[in-house]
Order: sequence, then structure tokens, then C-alpha cells
Amino acid sequence: MAGYVSEAVIRRLPGYYRHLKELEAEGVRQISSQELGERMKLTASQIRQDINCFGGFGRQGYGYSVPELREHIGKILGIDQTHRMVIIGAGNIGRAVALSDSFPANGFQTMALFDTDPKKIGASIGAHQVQDMATIASFLAAHAVDIAVLAVPVAIAQQVVETLTANGVNAIWNFAPVDLKLPAGATAVNVHLEEGLEILSFKMKAKGE
Amino acid sequence: MAGYVSEAVIRRLPGYYRHLKELEAEGVRQISSQELGERMKLTASQIRQDINCFGGFGRQGYGYSVPELREHIGKILGIDQTHRMVIIGAGNIGRAVALSDSFPANGFQTMALFDTDPKKIGASIGAHQVQDMATIASFLAAHAVDIAVLAVPVAIAQQVVETLTANGVNAIWNFAPVDLKLPAGATAVNVHLEEGLEILSFKMKAKGE
Repeated sequence: MAGYVSEAVIRRLPGYYRHLKELEAEGVRQISSQELGERMKLTASQIRQDINCFGGFGRQGYGYSVPELREHIGKILGIDQTHRMVIIGAGNIGRAVALSDSFPANGFQTMALFDTDPKKIGASIGAHQVQDMATIASFLAAHAVDIAVLAVPVAIAQQVVETLTANGVNAIWNFAPVDLKLPAGATAVNVHLEEGLEILSFKMKAKGE
Repeated sequence: MAGYVSEAVIRRLPGYYRHLKELEAEGVRQISSQELGERMKLTASQIRQDINCFGGFGRQGYGYSVPELREHIGKILGIDQTHRMVIIGAGNIGRAVALSDSFPANGFQTMALFDTDPKKIGASIGAHQVQDMATIASFLAAHAVDIAVLAVPVAIAQQVVETLTANGVNAIWNFAPVDLKLPAGATAVNVHLEEGLEILSFKMKAKGE
């Protein structure tokens, strides 16, 4: 991979991947930076810059090979490999993630769900039975897990993260509306759903003004 | 509101709002740009710039009033008002949004859920009964609705959006992994969940290298 990639480019990578997958499904084999730019609402020069930046390969006057570029970006994202996840919190969000077809279809496999609520422990969610959070350390000792989906109340989020990282899970997909403190070596992506609604509210207001 | 606000500042507004709400709950009444910056992992000068930009009011050597600033940002975001939502798609995501306590607690109220699936129509989700998508136009004619939560498969997302905007709903909270084409006057915020996981995968890989 070609050296330093800026945060802005990283944030665009999944968009590239999605559009290239769509193009492949449509049977498109080659695409110019111009055409890809129109589709992604970026300029052709932005597209060329981005793709140069992550070490892509166009041929002058020929454009990019859609399947090659899709595969290349998939490798950069690391989604050519399977990721194993545990879901912490069997509430609405944890349940939605566990029941989704699209995550496993893209290599993100839920291994188990955990909760502290005696009313939820033992309940079936899809193919899983909710397990007791008190047993998470032994589960993580016995199973290779890459990612924890954090779908717990704010009040306990930090404490749960400390348990997870202490037991070797260093990637957190965080749905709790709180900024987590992470040890070195751990990483998180936040999904602050509420904030999306707030920005939508702002945009509605701006349009109305 | 003070003139033009950049997209980057807009994206930070919900974070300000969340941190100020937390500070209020902790009983903090005044905060300096230095302290707020430490909390939000921004520099003091960034904080001052942002707050100037959205027309905030600090007093030299005194800092910001937490409740005043929180209220001011709430007004800018438009979340001092109630928003009424319909949820389109009674699958895992639609269900999770409908059952959440936090959205209504913050003024985002679900009015109704719609689906096309005869097996889902009539089913109870919390206080709601899933309604037939075929009846959406008459529902929207009879009820004031600000926001549609789009939780449908990609294949029908664009068509559903056209129905919604034709019936006066101009704000879309989009969970379908597709870029919607919107008429002028409509606005959308995308929650592409899968992309968050892909970025997490990238970051894990980058840490491992």
C-alpha cells in the first residue's frame, strides 16, 4: 500500500468499494476517472488523486479495470478477510446487527451476543442465544474475535470497553453516544445515530431559511 | 445564526451539543475553551473559532455558560422543536429505530411504520402497528411529518424516496447503502453502517502493519 493515506481518503474508500461493486454487478469492466467521478459526485482529478494515493493503477487513455480496482480497494480495507465479531448488548441495536444478512455476506460474522440482563440471557436472536456478559472473558480466551459491537448504555460503555481490550479485542464498533478512552493499540469507529438525526434537523432548518 | 457555517463545523455541532449536555448533567455551569477543547479533543483556538462561527458568546476571561451555549446550539440544530418521523421498512433497522427510547426523548417522534410485506403489515412494534406502504400517501396527507427513516432494500430505495418527496416529506434519514437522487428542496443524511465496519477493518489493518 502506497504510504500515507489521509483520513479524508480513508473515509471515501468504502464509497469507492460500493460503487465499484455496483458497477461490477452492472457488468461494467472498465471505467474512466471522468465516469467514476460523475457517479460518485467527485471530480475526475479527485478520483485520479485518490486512486494514486492508495496505489491504484490506471492506464493512460484506458481507465481503470473495475474488478481489479474493486479487489485492490477490498484488500486495502482488509475486507478480503473474514472478521469475527461479538455483540455486547442485546437491545434494539445489538439485535438489528445480529439479525442483519448484509454484515455476514460481507465477511463480518457474529460469533456471539452478550448481555447482563437476566431477562435477555438465554433468549434466541436469530441463530444465537444471548450469553451472560459475566462469561465474556472465557469466551474470548476460547475464540478468536476481531471486533466488538458495543451496543450498551452510555453509563457502562467505558467499563465494557476496558473488559474487551483487556481480553484482546482491540477494534470497537461503538453505538454508545460517548467518546471512549482506548488503550494504545485499540481502535474504534463511532456510529452516533442521534447525531445524524440532529444534522438532518439542521439541514432541514437551513433549507427552510 | 451567524452567516455561512462550513460542513466541517456542522458535523461537529452534535458533538458540542452532546458534551454540553453531559457537562450540564455533571453540574458544570461555566467552561473555558481550554477545558472544552480538552474534553472534545480539539484545540482551544478551534473551539473559539467554531463558537464564533455559529454566533456564540464567550466573555473574555470567563468562558462560556454551559446551559446558554447548549441551548444556543440546540436552536441552531433545530432540536428545540419536535420532529415527526415515519419509518419506511419494518425490518431490523426500522424496528430498532421504532423501539429506541432515545430518539423520542430528544424530540424525534415516530408517528408510524410502513412496509410492503403482507407478513409484516399489521404486526405490532412497540406502540405501533405496521401499516401498508400502499396507504402512505393518504397518511402523509392527513399527518404533518418532517422526516422519513428509510430502512428498505437498496433495490426500492430510490422509488420510495420519490413517493415520499412527492408527498411532502423532504428530509430522509437513509440507511440504504445507496446514494439517493433527491429533488431540489429535499435533504438526506446517510447512515451507511457497513462503511463504518469497513473503516474499522482498515484501521485494524493499519494498526497491525
